[in-house]
Amino acid sequence: MTGNFMGERFVTASFGESHGQCIGTLIDGCPAGLPLSKEEVQSDLDLRKPGRAAIYTGRKEEDEVEILSGVFQGHTTGAPICMFIRNKAVDSRPYERFKRVPRPGHADYTARVKYGGFSDWRGGGRFSGRITASYVMAGSVAKKVLGFALGVETLAYSTQIGGIRARELSPEEIRESRYQNDVRCPDTAAADKMMKAIKEVMKEGDSLGGVVECLVLYVPTGLGEPVFSSLESDLSRALFSIPAVKGVEFGKGFNLTEMKGSESNDPFVLRSGRVVTSTNRMGGILGGISTGMPLILRVAVKPTASIHKRQRSVDLEDMVETEITVAGHHDPCIVPRVVPVVESVVAIVLTDHALRFGLIPPVLERDER
Amino acid sequence: MTGNFMGERFVTASFGESHGQCIGTLIDGCPAGLPLSKEEVQSDLDLRKPGRAAIYTGRKEEDEVEILSGVFQGHTTGAPICMFIRNKAVDSRPYERFKRVPRPGHADYTARVKYGGFSDWRGGGRFSGRITASYVMAGSVAKKVLGFALGVETLAYSTQIGGIRARELSPEEIRESRYQNDVRCPDTAAADKMMKAIKEVMKEGDSLGGVVECLVLYVPTGLGEPVFSSLESDLSRALFSIPAVKGVEFGKGFNLTEMKGSESNDPFVLRSGRVVTSTNRMGGILGGISTGMPLILRVAVKPTASIHKRQRSVDLEDMVETEITVAGHHDPCIVPRVVPVVESVVAIVLTDHALRFGLIPPVLERDER
Amino acid sequence: MTGNFMGERFVTASFGESHGQCIGTLIDGCPAGLPLSKEEVQSDLDLRKPGRAAIYTGRKEEDEVEILSGVFQGHTTGAPICMFIRNKAVDSRPYERFKRVPRPGHADYTARVKYGGFSDWRGGGRFSGRITASYVMAGSVAKKVLGFALGVETLAYSTQIGGIRARELSPEEIRESRYQNDVRCPDTAAADKMMKAIKEVMKEGDSLGGVVECLVLYVPTGLGEPVFSSLESDLSRALFSIPAVKGVEFGKGFNLTEMKGSESNDPFVLRSGRVVTSTNRMGGILGGISTGMPLILRVAVKPTASIHKRQRSVDLEDMVETEITVAGHHDPCIVPRVVPVVESVVAIVLTDHALRFGLIPPVLERDER
Amino acid sequence: MTGNFMGERFVTASFGESHGQCIGTLIDGCPAGLPLSKEEVQSDLDLRKPGRAAIYTGRKEEDEVEILSGVFQGHTTGAPICMFIRNKAVDSRPYERFKRVPRPGHADYTARVKYGGFSDWRGGGRFSGRITASYVMAGSVAKKVLGFALGVETLAYSTQIGGIRARELSPEEIRESRYQNDVRCPDTAAADKMMKAIKEVMKEGDSLGGVVECLVLYVPTGLGEPVFSSLESDLSRALFSIPAVKGVEFGKGFNLTEMKGSESNDPFVLRSGRVVTSTNRMGGILGGISTGMPLILRVAVKPTASIHKRQRSVDLEDMVETEITVAGHHDPCIVPRVVPVVESVVAIVLTDHALRFGLIPPVLERDER
Repeated sequence: MTGNFMGERFVTASFGESHGQCIGTLIDGCPAGLPLSKEEVQSDLDLRKPGRAAIYTGRKEEDEVEILSGVFQGHTTGAPICMFIRNKAVDSRPYERFKRVPRPGHADYTARVKYGGFSDWRGGGRFSGRITASYVMAGSVAKKVLGFALGVETLAYSTQIGGIRARELSPEEIRESRYQNDVRCPDTAAADKMMKAIKEVMKEGDSLGGVVECLVLYVPTGLGEPVFSSLESDLSRALFSIPAVKGVEFGKGFNLTEMKGSESNDPFVLRSGRVVTSTNRMGGILGGISTGMPLILRVAVKPTASIHKRQRSVDLEDMVETEITVAGHHDPCIVPRVVPVVESVVAIVLTDHALRFGLIPPVLERDER
Repeated sequence: MTGNFMGERFVTASFGESHGQCIGTLIDGCPAGLPLSKEEVQSDLDLRKPGRAAIYTGRKEEDEVEILSGVFQGHTTGAPICMFIRNKAVDSRPYERFKRVPRPGHADYTARVKYGGFSDWRGGGRFSGRITASYVMAGSVAKKVLGFALGVETLAYSTQIGGIRARELSPEEIRESRYQNDVRCPDTAAADKMMKAIKEVMKEGDSLGGVVECLVLYVPTGLGEPVFSSLESDLSRALFSIPAVKGVEFGKGFNLTEMKGSESNDPFVLRSGRVVTSTNRMGGILGGISTGMPLILRVAVKPTASIHKRQRSVDLEDMVETEITVAGHHDPCIVPRVVPVVESVVAIVLTDHALRFGLIPPVLERDER
Repeated sequence: MTGNFMGERFVTASFGESHGQCIGTLIDGCPAGLPLSKEEVQSDLDLRKPGRAAIYTGRKEEDEVEILSGVFQGHTTGAPICMFIRNKAVDSRPYERFKRVPRPGHADYTARVKYGGFSDWRGGGRFSGRITASYVMAGSVAKKVLGFALGVETLAYSTQIGGIRARELSPEEIRESRYQNDVRCPDTAAADKMMKAIKEVMKEGDSLGGVVECLVLYVPTGLGEPVFSSLESDLSRALFSIPAVKGVEFGKGFNLTEMKGSESNDPFVLRSGRVVTSTNRMGGILGGISTGMPLILRVAVKPTASIHKRQRSVDLEDMVETEITVAGHHDPCIVPRVVPVVESVVAIVLTDHALRFGLIPPVLERDER
Repeated sequence: MTGNFMGERFVTASFGESHGQCIGTLIDGCPAGLPLSKEEVQSDLDLRKPGRAAIYTGRKEEDEVEILSGVFQGHTTGAPICMFIRNKAVDSRPYERFKRVPRPGHADYTARVKYGGFSDWRGGGRFSGRITASYVMAGSVAKKVLGFALGVETLAYSTQIGGIRARELSPEEIRESRYQNDVRCPDTAAADKMMKAIKEVMKEGDSLGGVVECLVLYVPTGLGEPVFSSLESDLSRALFSIPAVKGVEFGKGFNLTEMKGSESNDPFVLRSGRVVTSTNRMGGILGGISTGMPLILRVAVKPTASIHKRQRSVDLEDMVETEITVAGHHDPCIVPRVVPVVESVVAIVLTDHALRFGLIPPVLERDER
């Protein structure tokens, strides 16, 4: 398959460009009989939109979803589901220059080379963060399937922004508070500091990165296929499809490299007759297969590449070195907006694996009509 | 496709079990006309074998490769290449217990649940580190294709073991010295300390983890497909198929999350008329597509799960908590042995992407016979 | 992949339902730089629409195509192309009954069972002949790619309807006359008889089937991959995705089974220094690979299942035998409308194989903008 | 995926060459817990071997299967199953000439062009009928899965050879008698005539083709995915991967094209409270999905291309026209040997679809060990 598709039994496609007609997704393999409404997808999409806080200076869009196919009488039909949002608040003029003078840290240069100058450069085209709206639409369906059939729950939040770290948080705290503030960090004290840090770099015309953590609860044991479709393999593939993600780790991740085996191994114990591990440094995955413990993963989000500060670049027409400043509206920190996107792609991958492993039937409930 | 396959145009399959007949690979899509001998594959396989140093206490195998198909008159034919090594030095008795009392940090438990007790538990079966021999056989062919057609070179080495970090190293140093010592760290001073640290944990019956870094030189610009087959997506998928890997990062990876955009963006400059970046914090990838700069990636390897120390576990037959000590031969640190495996899977993914992008022809040279 | 996707490097997806919002296609892997306009796709789509002749009594739709993505400044960008047509002339009432009392020869029954009653039954939903509009949209792009890059030309026509056979026809006759009459048979004498036969069954409330032949000119030698993606394998897979197709043959097909080897083998000869075969009973394919001779294939189209005559069926709610007559507008013979659909799916498969074999570059021409 | 792989959830790969080391298959996705022995696979393989009758003049091989992986303690483990047979009775000398002067009707020419002269030409290499042994090994496992989990039964036989047709036969007759005579035709009278016809063409140094019919009993309703993975699509793809197959039809196939709708539609009726069709002209498939009636399909097998008669060809080195006679041992009619191959590929496709549709669990029975 080509790169805009992912999945084996729950297949997600992404299409559309930042300043083209629309951003859309095509989902094939969704079981029939899932109750699904436009409003549910919309409420997930709304989480991806920039907040109202001063730290969001980017483009404002309605992002109203239209479902083109695959849903009938309030339920999925088993047929492919196509959904999209229209692009409206579009001003492509500033981007004309980036085609010629590529922005450091952006795909302007690589897209131009790969597609011989034919790629849609307006707003970054296919390389805009805006394409993650297609993941969120597909993820909305996946979350619904997972919740309906298995009770699985995905909880992501900002655990670090600009070096400020959230304290350890319980699943309850994350569930209740992750969308309560603009940085999507359930630790209010840390959230305040993060807000301050973002406002500060805004003044400098600079940007910040951070880390999003995702917890997945009620994951059945046995998800994941050895070897090239281990849960870590397929999750990381999906997570790295989010623009700006440059690192992915599971459980204690890179910290494991400084532990001893006796410190990193999670002991097996019995709790109410069930086999669990007393710690979860492996993030709920052993041998690429879910253990039944919560999945834990973290993604590293680099600072927004579009900054107001003057940067060095090359004029690709005249082939001379030059400088560039990126004007216009860009969020100084996209970490909070990555939160719902991480939840989405994680749900997409888990739905696919649950279908592969036969845990979700092809029809979710019998129709009595 | 199922999990034991990977790739679109250069497809690799893995088969075999740790204590079964063999470990093997099947490669489809290898261009015709590549000069290939059994000896070349063997020399790559030999790098994966445990060294002679005292820090390698694991099983000793000849690992002699047999090529079953796809090679004729010293060249690849374009037909599928099947290769395997026989398992010989096998003692499965200790593993019988792990089926009943799963080792912490191992796949004993998840494999049992997923396959209903039918999986081959001898030596860890499909979940043994030994299966990486199949990646190395396939990687050997991939490295040959990449080198022959494009001059691409993959250079991995141990950059950290048990908290001891190698200094910054030049590609030349890495190329020349990475296989010169038993820990596969070209920084001799660090290597000595790593050796000592490993010997120490051995005495304690414990184990260490670490980090493998991989540098890829002479990568053409334009490799990688948006969005779900970005270079980072496909590389991470392959890297997480290596047992014990729990984290993957590109360029400055998780360190980027504490930088500002002005510090992380790589400025574009001209060098001898070519567009390059003056720094390479992005690891040679922008928008999921190779920039033409060296690829840089790092993988986190957890400490060996099999340790001699007493650990808590559960007896799955009687469903009672118990304790387990893992006897037998296990390397106290597998980081050095992961080095050639990382090179292999990176080469496999890049070969696939170079074929997808049309940079490698289906026949590598015309036959004059 | 799931069933609504096809292809490896030129991937086509089909979505939409007969009486839903729309019928659409998503294409991924189309090379960048192909000149493409909405008008070109529209003119191919118009060929699929029912003619004005008295033999077309089916639904009338505008079928105006909308291109949602992947085309910019008159050229393909290399990004996924999403296109669709809206459904407008929709009257779903008659179909309510078919959900309960399935039409013989239709998918009403199997769709109901497979999707647990949730499938969109209006107008046949995903099982309507109308979904072939998605193949034609994708085929339009494929034909453009094949023509632009390789000069390949696909020529289909009705070679038999209701037992009336066209005489042997030259490629020139087919090219010029296949869309000149309403039955799409370039043999005018046969065409007249076919028209008469169709009108006759119309009066009886019955229907006819027939055979569509497709000739493909200027096919490069070497297309097709052994073994499961032989040209015949992949073409037949695509051809059987056309509703009502129940047989596919290549070259002399089933007639070969009554020949001797000395009669069926095509001798190799030289023509202007090129290796060709003096006959073409194999239909331009040997060992699943194109010989460079014209491809020749034929598909068997069953009679339209929806007929006015009274038929036996079962009431699935009351579980009693009953009778059904299908009222409403249905073409008494869909063979002529299958003609452009066959051309489309053949072009889709050949484009995919030409890309796989490296005959079409990822960028079709350098952009000078 | 590349061409030597097929399937989504039950994946089959084919490898090996006619005169190389071996012919093999790799199966991934086989459920764990299936009782499987080498002897069962061997007995299926033995059906593919040439009979002892005078009409089999081809190469004699032991074809002893070796199982390399995926089976443990008499059961499948869920891991990939690799199996192969060694090539032994090999005389490659006659083939050297065909590389230079390609045999009409064979892949000698197309293989040479596609692989730039590097393909293994010995014995036809990958294009030999011998590679169907890999299908039979995989098919043997598939038949076992289908029988074990669903009771599905595949029954193929020669229904026509050299123009001689078998009478209509009951499933019982086919089941009991299809392997009772050397032409694999359960109609003894027809079988005698077929034998005579084959002996006659042998004397002339010529060959015959024919038709293999396959009946599949106890197929569950609902197998098949719209649109590009309709049951007809996926079955035909697999059937056309059998060398010498040039046509495939389902139900009444090409005969449907001369019927009226009132003659071709199968009426729905009730039999013992189950919905069935009173006739089965559609071959058990409606809308690409199984109806629950027996599947019926037919494949056209062309006459053996290798004949002793003098034929015209081209010397590809000197580029002059010449003549060729094919000496050596070749079956004058391969139709009987195609019979078990058709059963095999049909079983492979149905197993895949039953897994996709969730009808076969990932573990076939709980292990009590």
